[in-house]
Amino acid sequence: MLRECLENVHSKMPLVHSITNYVTVNDVANVILACGGSPIMADDGREAEEITAVCQGLNINIGTLNASTIPSMFLAGKKANMLSHPVLLDPVGAGASELRTSTALELVNEIKFSVIRGNISEIKTLAFGSGSTKGVDADIADKVTEENLDASVAFAKKFAESHGCVAAITGAIDLVADADTCYVIRNGRPQMGRITGTGCQLSGMMTAYLAANPQNCLEAATAAVCVMGLAGEIGESHMQPFEGNASYRNRIIDAVCHMDGEMLEKGAKYEVR
Amino acid sequence: MLRECLENVHSKMPLVHSITNYVTVNDVANVILACGGSPIMADDGREAEEITAVCQGLNINIGTLNASTIPSMFLAGKKANMLSHPVLLDPVGAGASELRTSTALELVNEIKFSVIRGNISEIKTLAFGSGSTKGVDADIADKVTEENLDASVAFAKKFAESHGCVAAITGAIDLVADADTCYVIRNGRPQMGRITGTGCQLSGMMTAYLAANPQNCLEAATAAVCVMGLAGEIGESHMQPFEGNASYRNRIIDAVCHMDGEMLEKGAKYEVR
Amino acid sequence: MLRECLENVHSKMPLVHSITNYVTVNDVANVILACGGSPIMADDGREAEEITAVCQGLNINIGTLNASTIPSMFLAGKKANMLSHPVLLDPVGAGASELRTSTALELVNEIKFSVIRGNISEIKTLAFGSGSTKGVDADIADKVTEENLDASVAFAKKFAESHGCVAAITGAIDLVADADTCYVIRNGRPQMGRITGTGCQLSGMMTAYLAANPQNCLEAATAAVCVMGLAGEIGESHMQPFEGNASYRNRIIDAVCHMDGEMLEKGAKYEVR
Repeated sequence: MLRECLENVHSKMPLVHSITNYVTVNDVANVILACGGSPIMADDGREAEEITAVCQGLNINIGTLNASTIPSMFLAGKKANMLSHPVLLDPVGAGASELRTSTALELVNEIKFSVIRGNISEIKTLAFGSGSTKGVDADIADKVTEENLDASVAFAKKFAESHGCVAAITGAIDLVADADTCYVIRNGRPQMGRITGTGCQLSGMMTAYLAANPQNCLEAATAAVCVMGLAGEIGESHMQPFEGNASYRNRIIDAVCHMDGEMLEKGAKYEVR
Repeated sequence: MLRECLENVHSKMPLVHSITNYVTVNDVANVILACGGSPIMADDGREAEEITAVCQGLNINIGTLNASTIPSMFLAGKKANMLSHPVLLDPVGAGASELRTSTALELVNEIKFSVIRGNISEIKTLAFGSGSTKGVDADIADKVTEENLDASVAFAKKFAESHGCVAAITGAIDLVADADTCYVIRNGRPQMGRITGTGCQLSGMMTAYLAANPQNCLEAATAAVCVMGLAGEIGESHMQPFEGNASYRNRIIDAVCHMDGEMLEKGAKYEVR
Repeated sequence: MLRECLENVHSKMPLVHSITNYVTVNDVANVILACGGSPIMADDGREAEEITAVCQGLNINIGTLNASTIPSMFLAGKKANMLSHPVLLDPVGAGASELRTSTALELVNEIKFSVIRGNISEIKTLAFGSGSTKGVDADIADKVTEENLDASVAFAKKFAESHGCVAAITGAIDLVADADTCYVIRNGRPQMGRITGTGCQLSGMMTAYLAANPQNCLEAATAAVCVMGLAGEIGESHMQPFEGNASYRNRIIDAVCHMDGEMLEKGAKYEVR
């Protein structure tokens, strides 16, 4: 399953339109290329729909949203819906400001997302209209743990059902759920949290996976989560003792670049609930 | 010839003003520093002309053009023309949206460019007012090959003549032409295409070369293309087996940083047509 | 003293709001994470105050200022002042355009900064309302040297006194001064000047240090300068012969990531004047 999702990305080389933040956009572009896709970034309202139309998937990330880019997110999102292209929402920092929360909620109301991917705090904000976001990282009191896993899985499924999408809640333990099925993924390394934009990168790569596997969003999203986590493990194994988060960032993207279906099937650590 | 162009960059340390996209801007700044120039980015209309005036060259890249930056491109371009500074256009994605195509065409109409550098699809869009752009990569059906080289060289010369500029059409085979002479360059590596922004980087570095060699645009542009391609070869030779596109990006800029005139003369692979 | 400043960052993990340029923003985010802080970037006027309110420090960098972000700088700065959060100004390119100079001067008039950090040319522009800026690098005729050190130290103290802040003037020799005391720091390596954004990175990291040591701005700023310079030395020691500015950028951030209080106390080279 995972292998097929990956190989579809390699063979179809989907073009992914990202309207994303300027903090991590370069890494998003490079990880989309690394995984086998092709990136294009365009956020002016006069071209947002047209660029979306020539792509196979749309990645909306509200990380540095502004008065110019927000309308483009709606235009592109609606166009992608019309064309039945997969659309992903990364509600970066939802809960940290009224602008982020309300924009994310409006996007969810007006656009049909294939996947909503965020940390638990951001997803809770979308679920409950509030939540406590510490910057762009998940509230520590609210992380998914082995102890609260049953409740977290139930929450993910319910969120997916009520929003008619796949929910991808990432953290130390990752959950990818639709209404009925939840993949619980235990790949990755804690030090990934010290790199800016691993979440944004995952969203970009996941959109490439969705674009190459449009009939199979749950598995495609799961595969992307496993690739990212496994790349974090492989990347760490190549670190020299003096290397830190800057080099780790490169080693993870490098590992995505070398990932094939066999490595993914062997290395992915998930269970189905 | 190439050596002299490179050494002029090292000795003159030209200041280059770039109005460019936010996806690859950091790499553009670092490659300008690596090659011996000094970068400044400024895209607000209230300072675009003034910043251009203190620089020796202007690099206009439409990669993430918007309502705020487009007018700045025109202001800076006209100011640079008034001051007889070299101006380069990188029409990223021309053909992919009406906004990109029309903006690129208007820029070409209103500003005199020393060099227009793009992939074959983008240059064809400027030549014919249409074209097929797959995202930011050249249309595969339209790439420059050994088989269509004569026709491609003729097209490059004609484009250069009709636009009164040097045409730099880059891909697996690179062409740098004025109306009479075309350099055909065979440096570089295929894997460079899996890094975001190698074209943008080349445009930034090329502008530094033009700024340091303003009387000699054809050779300066050729030298920059050779430096980038050769850096791709040298960078690849330093890759470890597990490294991918993220590390390769760094190794290429590193190689630009270490390039000297002798290495360039030895490694450049070009013919004149 | 330096050790305590560093350890406070590690234990408090301050959240830092940066309104900064898009050229170097990714490196700023990664160096804030590397030093133990947590970054958030938000520059829309509708959320600037709210994001500042959830953070512990604010970093204002005018590197690619525009009509949208300038008002956000004022809003966030005033909010941070109301909340008594440390605020840092990095007046990138002040002196290079009227827009930069006037914006920097207005910011200094309307907002109380804990630290103003720039090269000597930028700081002189703020002091005298003019100055000669060559792009974003200090005017060579105006650099701090052993020969002009007494005068430079006096200038730094006077600037600090008249602006009611700590002055951090960085270059080959770094000065960090309040009205009475000036730390003269001799860490760092010349090759750091060939990386884009080492100054921006220092400003981001310094804001994390201020946020974790709000009662002790002079020492916190000094510690951040020492960390950056020492990281430049350590990073250089890990360079392979073929590596250049792109790799060096990563190695410096990596070294920040591994820095502890003991390394800092041992490696910091400063005197008090």
